[in-house]
Amino acid sequence: LLPDYQWLDSAGPVDYLNNHSQARLTAMNSDPKLIAKAPILTWYYVATTLDPVRASSGPTQPPTHTFETCPPVNYVLMPGTLLNPTLPPSFVKFVQERYADPSVTFLTVCTGSLTLAPTGILDHHRVASNKGALKYLAQSGQLNHKVHWVGDRRWVKDGKVWSAAGITSGIDLAAEFARVYFDKDVVEKA
Amino acid sequence: LLPDYQWLDSAGPVDYLNNHSQARLTAMNSDPKLIAKAPILTWYYVATTLDPVRASSGPTQPPTHTFETCPPVNYVLMPGTLLNPTLPPSFVKFVQERYADPSVTFLTVCTGSLTLAPTGILDHHRVASNKGALKYLAQSGQLNHKVHWVGDRRWVKDGKVWSAAGITSGIDLAAEFARVYFDKDVVEKA
Repeated sequence: LLPDYQWLDSAGPVDYLNNHSQARLTAMNSDPKLIAKAPILTWYYVATTLDPVRASSGPTQPPTHTFETCPPVNYVLMPGTLLNPTLPPSFVKFVQERYADPSVTFLTVCTGSLTLAPTGILDHHRVASNKGALKYLAQSGQLNHKVHWVGDRRWVKDGKVWSAAGITSGIDLAAEFARVYFDKDVVEKA
Repeated sequence: LLPDYQWLDSAGPVDYLNNHSQARLTAMNSDPKLIAKAPILTWYYVATTLDPVRASSGPTQPPTHTFETCPPVNYVLMPGTLLNPTLPPSFVKFVQERYADPSVTFLTVCTGSLTLAPTGILDHHRVASNKGALKYLAQSGQLNHKVHWVGDRRWVKDGKVWSAAGITSGIDLAAEFARVYFDKDVVEKA
């Protein structure tokens, strides 16, 4: 969670995916057979320090971990930020180290992929991003050409990187994620 | 913000609408002419106490006000909750008092309308809600028939009540809100 990050980029996919979790289906009194097939999801909200982060909107958000203290994870979800933010060294280290772990997949929403590009992990990948931002950066000569930017798709999967275009397409990306990783009954009924 | 409320019900419309605000357009270095036409939006996050609220997912959310201390508002946005929650008396009083103010419009998302129904403010209104929840309550004889429930629309406007169906339709409702209340250029370009 970097300062001013786009709230809906995170809330969309997180809440969509979490609706399929054992914990949420239990809270909603769903069919026990469905709950048994549902994934157990544990979410960490990771930032530079434990100070509450102010997103584009919404209440302030107290992180659960810093980039140094975050436990092992299977997936990293990167929401969009304002263009060309200053990247804290602990953030860059976190991204590069987690990417180097073969068991970790990255998901990006909106300009989140543009924010990750300077870390080098997207080099030579096909990656989606916010169309308006891609156009602006291309026109102003600021686009990182080591990344193969895809401007005409809601989402793109390439190896360990799943990327979505503008804000709400993060929910489409999450829907594909659910189709690939979750039980079919859970996806259809949850 | 009631406990376990659906995170995306709130984050969707709030972040969507806030993207049109002067503050957000300024942060994004938008055209000053566009910023001048943009609305100034002030958000309050209101709960029973100032203790952080745990939504369906996401980081905990520190409210900005309690139901007793919330300043005057123009709009109240009610996200969905689990079915048949216990309604705190301060919440019921807040809802009824704000509804009695002719200048206040209510917006509901998903089961938020079902949560408001026991307060009486929706009586005789045409109101949308989560389709699955409507069906379940109708079949189990728990549906409040003083409200005219609309099961086949993404959103419905009726007087001071704007209501949306399931989670993501809250963003459609917010889009209609922006079309009605915001400058046309801001809606098209922001």
